[in-house]
Amino acid sequence: MRRSGDEGFVLGIDLGGTKVAVSAADPAGRILAHRRRPTAPTGSPERDLAALADDARALVAEAGLDRGQLRAVGVSVPGPVDLEGGRVVDPPNLPGWGEVAVVAALEDALGAPTWIDNDANAAALAEWRFGAGRGRTHLVYMTMSTGIGGGLILGGRLHRGVACSAGEVGHIPVEWDGAPCACGQRGCLEAYIGGAAWTRHLRRVTPAESLAAQLAGGAERVRPEELVEAARRGDPFALREMQRFVDYLARGIVILSFVLAPELFVLGTIAVAAGEELCFAPLRERVRPRLWRVLRDRVEIRPAALGARTAEFAGVCVAYEGLAGSLPRPAAARG
Amino acid sequence: MRRSGDEGFVLGIDLGGTKVAVSAADPAGRILAHRRRPTAPTGSPERDLAALADDARALVAEAGLDRGQLRAVGVSVPGPVDLEGGRVVDPPNLPGWGEVAVVAALEDALGAPTWIDNDANAAALAEWRFGAGRGRTHLVYMTMSTGIGGGLILGGRLHRGVACSAGEVGHIPVEWDGAPCACGQRGCLEAYIGGAAWTRHLRRVTPAESLAAQLAGGAERVRPEELVEAARRGDPFALREMQRFVDYLARGIVILSFVLAPELFVLGTIAVAAGEELCFAPLRERVRPRLWRVLRDRVEIRPAALGARTAEFAGVCVAYEGLAGSLPRPAAARG
Repeated sequence: MRRSGDEGFVLGIDLGGTKVAVSAADPAGRILAHRRRPTAPTGSPERDLAALADDARALVAEAGLDRGQLRAVGVSVPGPVDLEGGRVVDPPNLPGWGEVAVVAALEDALGAPTWIDNDANAAALAEWRFGAGRGRTHLVYMTMSTGIGGGLILGGRLHRGVACSAGEVGHIPVEWDGAPCACGQRGCLEAYIGGAAWTRHLRRVTPAESLAAQLAGGAERVRPEELVEAARRGDPFALREMQRFVDYLARGIVILSFVLAPELFVLGTIAVAAGEELCFAPLRERVRPRLWRVLRDRVEIRPAALGARTAEFAGVCVAYEGLAGSLPRPAAARG
Repeated sequence: MRRSGDEGFVLGIDLGGTKVAVSAADPAGRILAHRRRPTAPTGSPERDLAALADDARALVAEAGLDRGQLRAVGVSVPGPVDLEGGRVVDPPNLPGWGEVAVVAALEDALGAPTWIDNDANAAALAEWRFGAGRGRTHLVYMTMSTGIGGGLILGGRLHRGVACSAGEVGHIPVEWDGAPCACGQRGCLEAYIGGAAWTRHLRRVTPAESLAAQLAGGAERVRPEELVEAARRGDPFALREMQRFVDYLARGIVILSFVLAPELFVLGTIAVAAGEELCFAPLRERVRPRLWRVLRDRVEIRPAALGARTAEFAGVCVAYEGLAGSLPRPAAARG
């Protein structure tokens, strides 16, 4: 493990609903130390944040880093973020957290300028700097777990849009008057193939005698994981459902291609689990004929490379964005 | 009219199928002189380009500018552009033009570094710098004439994407297996409300006794212009067709809002002709409930401000982009 020199180091914090992770990295993007632990929100955000700050201090001590050399802290959080206020706002995956001034709390505790961003943007930055998107100028990152999130790297920087609301690729309407979505709208991509919606769909349509139902211990327990496994074993029902997944995903990718002309789509989580044969190869086959010739050979679709290691890089990338001046400095923290 | 000082001046050329325009501007964005004339391609691009260069020289002389002070030339052209090659590629509105090295020809004739871009991008830049989008950071420009083109200003710069193919907002599929589009794909926004497709649709569905048919001298002659006029006079058929136009346009705007979170949509041509009552007010009403609350009051939809004056600014904006290093310098021209 390399010690940071005079240039100092940054801390990245990945705050999830079931895991928290802390990393230290040097300015050149080398991870110096990392720790993660399972967590369950205690119901007191103050307590949870104090515990996180303890994690961070312990990591710094353990790695033999000089706290005086800490240049910045970056925090990746799930769900809506008020970047300017440095707050999370009702994160669905952190029960009991309403509006919490994460930045002010961590800045007090750790004594360095702190920035925050949502986990989809942070993961997009992580795949771009450290993963499948290294060296690319324009890429779209899509993360498909409970919902579908995204991050857009355009012209070599993250595009956040007004109110930092850009990149909501899961809420592109792919059927104008389609299925109701958890977000309150209709026909969103997420309402078809987001993890939660897809699971509900599968539990409704999976035949009791199907392999997926057997693997799950009952059709009412099927999750995308069992469906993928059944498809891998050649089960016809599961293969049809994978085709449906790929068809909807293709709609989103075609729309995004005509709007953004990215050179690369990086797909995470369930797409990675489904792999080349069940997801990426059929997806490319579905997308290609729906693009103009000029884009056909220029738009790549690839699996995310970091997997569970995303947590190692996400917060660090937010710290780099902050230092680079690409993120608003939270007002609460400046005063 | 202000003469350019030591900082020199730029020339902007707007090359259209029926009109050409030349402008001179100073570096601060003041138009110093402008002329335009009707044109019909002669079938010889060389001759057409030589005539354009003559126009440019005549404008410079007329305005009393010193040709030695010419810093850059920007050219706005219709249809596909090979930016790196400095060429137009089979522009549908310039019959007889195949692959034409516009940049090399004009650079030879005018003796200054020359850049090229397509007219949708150039118009987006013009509305951003001189029109309805002044001072904005993120805006989407949509131009609706024969087809539907667009330009994206994101983070204060034009997003071109890979192969300069971004911003094809007319080819967002708004019905996945929908109407065939002139581009070879299906369900494109343009296949419903682009000028050519909409005209075909109108000629199919307009009742012979309707006001629009009367205004046009027969249902088989109806164009969007007559439909708008009939709607303005309260004709129920025309009002229903305007509603259809607004409904499809809303789909495109909602999709673009979730992807890009722009602060402003600037709509040109037919939307401007239809105006507040027939287009913008019902459009906002249709879009708002389909956006998340965070975007509802932040995404504005406004008419383009430049109208026919776009030609005055479009080429000049391309020249500024070139000088700012935002456009590739055509390879042919460098050597």
